[in-house]
Amino acid sequence: MKKFVKATALVIMCSLLLTACGNLQDSGLSSGSSDSGKSTVQTASSSDTSSYDVLMSNGKYKTSSISGITAADNSNAFNSRSFESGLLNLSKKEFSTNSYVFQEGQVLSSSTVTDWLGRKSKKNPDGLNPASNGSKSETKRAPMYFQQMLEEDYLQKQDGKYKLAGISIGIAMNKIDYYQKKQYGATYQTTISREEQKAQGERIAKEVVKRLRKKSNVGNIPITVGLYSVAPEDTLVGGTYFQYSVSKSGDLGNWKELNFKNQVLPVVNNQTAINSGDSDAFANFKNNIQDYFPNLSGVTAQAHYDGNNLKSMDITINTQFDGLAQITSFTQFVQQSATKYLPSNADLDINIQTVDSQQSVVTRTNNKFYSHVFDAD
Amino acid sequence: MKKFVKATALVIMCSLLLTACGNLQDSGLSSGSSDSGKSTVQTASSSDTSSYDVLMSNGKYKTSSISGITAADNSNAFNSRSFESGLLNLSKKEFSTNSYVFQEGQVLSSSTVTDWLGRKSKKNPDGLNPASNGSKSETKRAPMYFQQMLEEDYLQKQDGKYKLAGISIGIAMNKIDYYQKKQYGATYQTTISREEQKAQGERIAKEVVKRLRKKSNVGNIPITVGLYSVAPEDTLVGGTYFQYSVSKSGDLGNWKELNFKNQVLPVVNNQTAINSGDSDAFANFKNNIQDYFPNLSGVTAQAHYDGNNLKSMDITINTQFDGLAQITSFTQFVQQSATKYLPSNADLDINIQTVDSQQSVVTRTNNKFYSHVFDAD
Repeated sequence: MKKFVKATALVIMCSLLLTACGNLQDSGLSSGSSDSGKSTVQTASSSDTSSYDVLMSNGKYKTSSISGITAADNSNAFNSRSFESGLLNLSKKEFSTNSYVFQEGQVLSSSTVTDWLGRKSKKNPDGLNPASNGSKSETKRAPMYFQQMLEEDYLQKQDGKYKLAGISIGIAMNKIDYYQKKQYGATYQTTISREEQKAQGERIAKEVVKRLRKKSNVGNIPITVGLYSVAPEDTLVGGTYFQYSVSKSGDLGNWKELNFKNQVLPVVNNQTAINSGDSDAFANFKNNIQDYFPNLSGVTAQAHYDGNNLKSMDITINTQFDGLAQITSFTQFVQQSATKYLPSNADLDINIQTVDSQQSVVTRTNNKFYSHVFDAD
Repeated sequence: MKKFVKATALVIMCSLLLTACGNLQDSGLSSGSSDSGKSTVQTASSSDTSSYDVLMSNGKYKTSSISGITAADNSNAFNSRSFESGLLNLSKKEFSTNSYVFQEGQVLSSSTVTDWLGRKSKKNPDGLNPASNGSKSETKRAPMYFQQMLEEDYLQKQDGKYKLAGISIGIAMNKIDYYQKKQYGATYQTTISREEQKAQGERIAKEVVKRLRKKSNVGNIPITVGLYSVAPEDTLVGGTYFQYSVSKSGDLGNWKELNFKNQVLPVVNNQTAINSGDSDAFANFKNNIQDYFPNLSGVTAQAHYDGNNLKSMDITINTQFDGLAQITSFTQFVQQSATKYLPSNADLDINIQTVDSQQSVVTRTNNKFYSHVFDAD
């Protein structure tokens, strides 16, 4: 309740400010806008101190123009969320949620990033993927290493205006590069080792920071760069960041290794569990709920690790039933079973759904459970 | 936290009991089961004192065999949830959540209820819908009044066994009866007045109670009966219970009127708002979020009233975006806007979704907000 009151107070404050003064200027980041004289700024305040407040410029949430641009095909939809959320988490190390406000990246344009993601060539001298060596062989060609790019901006208020004060850049490196030898042809793949991901990623990061520093609105502000390994198409979980570095003002500093791992439970194909205790715990949880509610079509989890420590589990339960009484009982029972069987410190995000729609949700954040049945009537 | 701890304790207690004794009997309600000697009982404990604990018999959640059986066509899916949740709420007046345990109806079989829902005829003397008068005219025919039936059982522990101690019956009465004059032909409709719903519903309820009292496992326990008016097919909200009565042991007592109303906001087709203050508040909420986030495809609400008092609002927001940062900001902003604009005492259930999937949820229950972004990565 306290946090909610705080958020409310913030909103009321913002509104009062807007009404009383009406002349808060935006930070000038939206350089294309000619009516900057009328522009106002409001933040969407987070009710949670571990999340960023968000800057809204000219009364609108501003999206980044580079989001969704990719170099090669990859149909694994889990990547996009983890690419974003991972960079947000890395950013929190450098840009505290108390003193910075978030905005989606506004510095890089889509045409710039499209060029950077391309192969280097006479027509595209800025391309950060290697020039083609002519080969179409899976093992001999020069693969597309650099798959996607993400920019996040962090702003601080200076002299009554929000100014860009930090940037985070996500660089997504392919683990498998999917390609066609001819248009509409079969898909082939080149596997890229972690060493190559690392070497190529560091080269690209260095160049990206150099180019960013040349932009007048960037100058000497800190830039955090994370290298992300894109999960292959057949993986039922997203990729992870494997190292990051901060450039305080000039070049990038030392790279720090990250040891994040994702695993789908139950493990299949004779895969080894990252932590067999967690895997057993999940199996017990799954068996318990399937014993009492036999009409389930699937119970799977995405387990997220830092090293061998389970950080969180995203569990999806597909039911064949959707009656209110049964969903309500089932949701209660899932929470009890989670309490009893699942590792006690991991955050949980349990989605209970039918083929048609979300039925209910059970979450545990910082050891506090919450459950909700969608009860539209 | 306290409630959650309580629930956990209950589960552990149950498990201990089961392990230690292993001979808890079920209540004998599942009369078809021949292995009752091995049967065990467990309840799924609610973490919320305003909800029922649920009995699981023979280690399984037991569904009612009559759920989903209907007399005539009606494609309005909103009816099924409100038919169930409304009866649960009526039951709480009679069967306290502290002293009764819930089980889906086990007394009535599907063949019995199929007969009862049919027209009375030589072949079906138990039919509770009127015999056909031969006419196929919309205004002259005898319509199907009785559309659906719901049984909910309430149990209490006596001498270490759960015994049936109360029953609630929902009787769904058509407001519009949809019918075909010939198979696969056009659909015609007969409109049924509230007076007819009331008279026919009371007749049917009286007969249902009389028949239930003849069953040996029912005998003289209290039976609550609610009459429900089924919402027509083109309504974007479910129906409501319009009156209820309790039979303590013999006949039904006086009928008590209920004044529940549902309305979809924003109102369309020159409909009058049930409460123009609420309708304006919702319009302001909707405008505010659409101003800041223009890429929304729809913002609608189901407002639930008791008389002219707004009890709750179920709001659905369809977004065209699904990036994590944007969804997170939007969710924060929706909560702020709800706090600022929406009527302060109503429970809120705000679902934020794309065409593909649920993105986040904001709820307010007893004036406490909760929000959650589905963050699978």
